[in-house]
Parts: sequence; C-alpha cells; structure tokens
Amino acid sequence: MSRIDTALSLLTPTRRGSVAPFLVMDVMTAAAKAEAEGKSVIHMEVGQPAAPTPLSIREAAAKALMQGQIGYTLALGIPDLRQRIARHYAETHGVEVPIGRIAVTMGSSSAFILSFLALFEHGARVAIASPGYPAYKNILEALGCEVVFIETTAATRWAVTPDMLAAEHARKKLDGILIASPANPTGTMMTPEALKALIEASRDLGIRFISDEIYHGLSYEMPCHTALETSDDVVVINSFSKYYCMTGWRIGWMVVPESLARSVECLAQNLFISAPQLSQVAALAAFDATAELEVIKAGYAANRRVLLDGLPRAGLDRLLPVDGAFYVYADVAKYTNDSLDFARRMLAETGIAATPGPDFDPYGGMHAIRFSFAGSTADMEEAVRRLGQWLK
Amino acid sequence: MSRIDTALSLLTPTRRGSVAPFLVMDVMTAAAKAEAEGKSVIHMEVGQPAAPTPLSIREAAAKALMQGQIGYTLALGIPDLRQRIARHYAETHGVEVPIGRIAVTMGSSSAFILSFLALFEHGARVAIASPGYPAYKNILEALGCEVVFIETTAATRWAVTPDMLAAEHARKKLDGILIASPANPTGTMMTPEALKALIEASRDLGIRFISDEIYHGLSYEMPCHTALETSDDVVVINSFSKYYCMTGWRIGWMVVPESLARSVECLAQNLFISAPQLSQVAALAAFDATAELEVIKAGYAANRRVLLDGLPRAGLDRLLPVDGAFYVYADVAKYTNDSLDFARRMLAETGIAATPGPDFDPYGGMHAIRFSFAGSTADMEEAVRRLGQWLK
Repeated sequence: MSRIDTALSLLTPTRRGSVAPFLVMDVMTAAAKAEAEGKSVIHMEVGQPAAPTPLSIREAAAKALMQGQIGYTLALGIPDLRQRIARHYAETHGVEVPIGRIAVTMGSSSAFILSFLALFEHGARVAIASPGYPAYKNILEALGCEVVFIETTAATRWAVTPDMLAAEHARKKLDGILIASPANPTGTMMTPEALKALIEASRDLGIRFISDEIYHGLSYEMPCHTALETSDDVVVINSFSKYYCMTGWRIGWMVVPESLARSVECLAQNLFISAPQLSQVAALAAFDATAELEVIKAGYAANRRVLLDGLPRAGLDRLLPVDGAFYVYADVAKYTNDSLDFARRMLAETGIAATPGPDFDPYGGMHAIRFSFAGSTADMEEAVRRLGQWLK
Repeated sequence: MSRIDTALSLLTPTRRGSVAPFLVMDVMTAAAKAEAEGKSVIHMEVGQPAAPTPLSIREAAAKALMQGQIGYTLALGIPDLRQRIARHYAETHGVEVPIGRIAVTMGSSSAFILSFLALFEHGARVAIASPGYPAYKNILEALGCEVVFIETTAATRWAVTPDMLAAEHARKKLDGILIASPANPTGTMMTPEALKALIEASRDLGIRFISDEIYHGLSYEMPCHTALETSDDVVVINSFSKYYCMTGWRIGWMVVPESLARSVECLAQNLFISAPQLSQVAALAAFDATAELEVIKAGYAANRRVLLDGLPRAGLDRLLPVDGAFYVYADVAKYTNDSLDFARRMLAETGIAATPGPDFDPYGGMHAIRFSFAGSTADMEEAVRRLGQWLK
C-alpha cells in the first residue's frame, strides 16, 4: 500500500495531555551515564526498595506460573486476596472492612484514577499538601480537576490542619482533599489525633477525603494509623510496592465507602479489566512474608540512624522529621537556591544521585533535596562520608 | 480511637463514575452457579483464549522471577521489548517504526486511557462503530469525551466508510474516530483499501484516528493490515492478550506519532509509572512462541469451521462474516427480540453461556448474541449439537 505523506504532523498533544515530566528522570539518566563510564554511583534518587521481592513471594508466583492459565480475574480482584486484605485491617488496625469495599488495583496508580473519577466531577477542586508526590497533581489535572496546594511548614509538623482546610474552603469551595501519612517526599507522619481531626473537619465541611497509605508499615517513631479507624466514609489507597517490596508487580488496593463500591467496580471493569493475575497471587503470599520484610525494614531503620547522625555532621543539619517511609527531605538553602543545579553537581562531584525538590514543591523545592534510604547501610555510610568532604 | 458515625453515607458516585456494568457479568455469575450445581457449561461468553499462555513464555517469566529484583521499568517499557515490537512491524508489515514512538502499556486498557488523554480534550466528540467493544464508550465518557455511534450494517460489510464519517462530521464536528479490525463483537475486518480510505478521509477532515489492532494475528480469510502501513499520524493500540494468550498479564503496547510521544511518556510516568516488569519480560519471549501460538490459532480456525457449518444447520443462519478474532455474532431476531432473555434461557436450558448483544450495541443488540470460539473444538461441536436440539 502507498503511504500517506504528511509534511508536518498535525497531531499536537492536548492541554490535558501536556504533563510535566519528573525532574528525577534527568538525574537517573545522568546517573546511568556516570555508571556506564565506570563511576561509583550511590542511588538515593528512586523511591523503591533496593531489596528484591522476598523469595517466598516470588516462589508463590513461580508456582502459579507453572500451574497454567494466567487469565483475567474479577475486576475487583481475586476473592482470597480481598479476604486477606480485610483480615489485615482486622489484625493490624482492629477495623472490620467487608470485602465488598475492597478493590485490588494495578498499584496505587489505578486506584488514584478510579477514586478521582468516582469521587470528583470534572472541574472539582481538590486540595493536596505541598511538598507532595508530584503524580497527585498531574493525575488530578489530567482528569480535569483543579489542584489546590496547601503549603505545610514545621509549625504544624508538615501536616495540613483543620484550620488550614477551613480557610482554603472559605476562600473557594473545596470538593476533596488527599493526604499521605507517612508522606512522600518528607517522610513525616500525622499523629493519630491530627489525622482524626482532619477527617472530622472534612466531613463537617462536606469535603471528600482520600488517605494515601502507601508507606504504611514503614514507620520508626510511632505506629501507622489508617483513616478507616476514624471513618468508613473515606477512600483509602494502599499498595504492595513499598513495605512489601513489590514495585514492579504493579499491585495495590483501595478501600471505598459502600456507596462507591459499585461505581468503582464498573469503572475498573471498563478502564482496567483486572489487575495482573500473577501479581495478585504473589500479593496474597506477601502477607506471610513478615519475617523477611521486617529484616528489610530493620535495614531502613539502620540507614535512617546513619543519616540522622551523619548528615548534620556532614553539613546538612536542616532535616524534616523522618517518621516513616524511606526519605530524608533536607533543606539545602545554606548552599544554594537552585536545588536542580545542586543535585546535578552533587552527582557529578560525589556520585550521589538524589531528587531535587521542585519535583515535590513548586514553591519551596528550589532549596530542598530528597534522599531515599531504601538502599544498603554501607551505601548510606559512604554517602555521608562523601557529602562531608564535598560540603566542607 | 473513637469512630465517626455517619448515619447515611453522603458519598454518592459522580456522574462520570456512574458507568454501566457489562451484562456478560450476569451471564458469568449464572454460569458459575450452574457449574457449582454440577451442570455442564460450555463457555462461549468470555473473550479470552482457553489455552494457557505458551510454556516458553511462562518459562521466561519464571527465570526472571528467580533472578531477583522485579522493579519499576522506564515508563515506556523495557528497551529490548520496544525494540522487538519495532522489529515485529518491520517483519510482519514492512513498516519502520522508531522505538521512540512505541510505548509498552498495561494491556490495551492503559493505552486507551493514555491515547484519549493525549489526543482529546474534555468535551471532544469521538466516533466509534456500533456494534463495538463497550469499554470504548465507557472509558471515553469517563474521560469527558462525547461518544458518537456510527451504525454499521451488512451494506458496508459492517465497516465505517469515509461517506459515513463525512456525514457525521458535517452534522457536528468530530475530533476523533476509533476503529477496530478485526472487530469485537463482530469478528469482521476492513479490507486494506477500506482502512486506507478511512484513514485518508480522517486526515482530510482533521479527525484524529485510533486503530485498535488487538485482534491482529487472528484472521482467517485475509491478512491483517496495520494502520501504520498507511500513515504515521495515527495512534495504534495492540496487546499481548489475544493472539499471544496473555490476558491476565495485563501487557500491551501502543504506537504514537512522534509529536505525541513525549506527552504519552509523561502521562504514563504519572498515571501508571510502568507496566508490570515480569509481564514485559514474558512479552519479549512471546515473539518467539510462534510455533505454539500457531497451533492454538489452528484450533480457532477449526472451531470457526465447526460453527460456520453447524450454526446454520442448528437454526442460526444469520451470521456476520467471521473474518478474524474468535467471535461469531449471530442475529437471533427470528427467535426473540430480547437477547438478554434468550441468553438467560439458553444457559439454563442448554448450558451454553454466551454474551447478549446489548453489551455491544444499544440499538440492534436486542436481537444479537456473541459466541466466543476461543475454547476447545469438542466444546464447539457439542454447542452446535445442543443448540440444534434446543432451537428445533
């Protein structure tokens, strides 16, 4: 067949398809290049466990693989896995969640899409904390929502408070709020009282509440509390990626109010059909891998100690509280007002790859750097040593 | 902690989250119930291969599983897989596709979401053929597009023509058109000339063109032609689910014009992070499983022959041309004007599960039934026998 020749493509992307890239991608590309040139790079840029998925989880998948058909599952997931997630809430949080309210998803990613579509009409205004995970803003905007940043500071331990929510709502009506605790990039957590107060305030103001609990299981100073302890009328999003070391499996879950379950089911049927079947089988085994997972977590705790002791001595003494997750969010204002340039130079001159703040905070991010400590303790010690020399 | 008690949940789903369920789900539930009661059920309702994923593909995944880390990949996929997909286009269609235009996706599902967001603004009008795959309409509407059904008939071999497109565009401006060949539920294919003419007409009218090629590889009377043979300025969506027997792996791909590649990459980073890593490794092996896959396809060809010979003798003599895919779309108007009731009775009285037409066609579907022939040939023969007795 002859082909149509079009001198210039007329296919420009839409406004809603014109999403900003992650700046960390440039760091990753530069890090890969440095490694290819034989340089020693310490990876503190990616929010993913360096440890492989525990063997027992991989063995469960291997067994399913050889048993035969890897097919579509029900849109909300394999019943055994939904049941096991319900048991997790009963055992860990003392909360009864009927499995009808549990949806297994393709990582937290598809859970965000499903919850935003089920909760928010086009044009809805949704508040998120700043600094925060950049995909919140980008997914919300791609789905036609208006994003309202609520700036957080040390004054409220980097949490959104009922007063801040009410003030923003009074300025212009909010339809929703999305909160993470432990948070990315800061690693800070809300106290149970602060979380409960914010959920109650949201309910009183008629603002829909989403709790991103993807870093649950990874806390160092206080236990993690789910929003479900406070209310059934919230959407909770979680994932097997972080504590369970299953990033590449793309498997997560959400808990929704009874009244939204059917909408989420029908959306999931159409938008995603089902989550990957092998990943669902593996996720079921993940709940029995606690011994292996707690060893990995103990490694993060050791890494955290190395950084909290070592970074201030190395010259980075303005750190946010590292309550959970595996991030240190460091203020580098005394060295630069351009953290992009700082990250670039740090990689080139010390071999430490880390994420510049503007990925998480369009305002204050130019004087912040996120260090992930999901790698080895030896790497953390070496990072502290190199930074100490470099910042001298 | 004390819990918030809300007498009645105020969380009703949004309009855009109020998606119609698939009617076939009711058939599947009834079929599972009948089987649990010990009845013999022939499954012709689900659009998924009965054959397991070829062993060589599963072995590739098993090997990767035991090698360690299952992590995030680049948003657009593993470079080796994108390279192999490019080679597939060169070998099968004689078309050069730079890997920069290829995105690996979570089945065709995430490819639809990415393409609709990158191509169509909120409020855009997008034409699809009726009968057609119901998720097209539901995903488009969830993402704020207006869906325009173009009714197809035997007169144009169940294809949308340039005249039909121009007429609809003249009535009210169209922004896009989405076409599948082979099609679901009809199994019909467009001739290469018809496909080329429609792509050219779309270009001339300024209408963005998406070609869903998920059933490529499964054709019985003529070879499959990709839209990329005609133009670079189209979006092509494909998947490993059907020909490659990999439904539950949730792995597919899309090819986009150069001008949209960056938008799709940034959207994918934010909305999906990456496709499942194991599934990507397995998909790479799928291109080398041709011998096993062609045996499975030969089984479909035998099934098709059994149904094309047997269904008319059994009393279903108004069938659409079964050019490709694994579906027979049968007109049952001489028996009923309520195909939902027909499907229910057929299951109860013959044990044959099939999909009622309204899932695919809000207008004519009430006198149509879709039979999937992705099962065993023995099952097809038995289905013909049971139908012959029942329809007598």
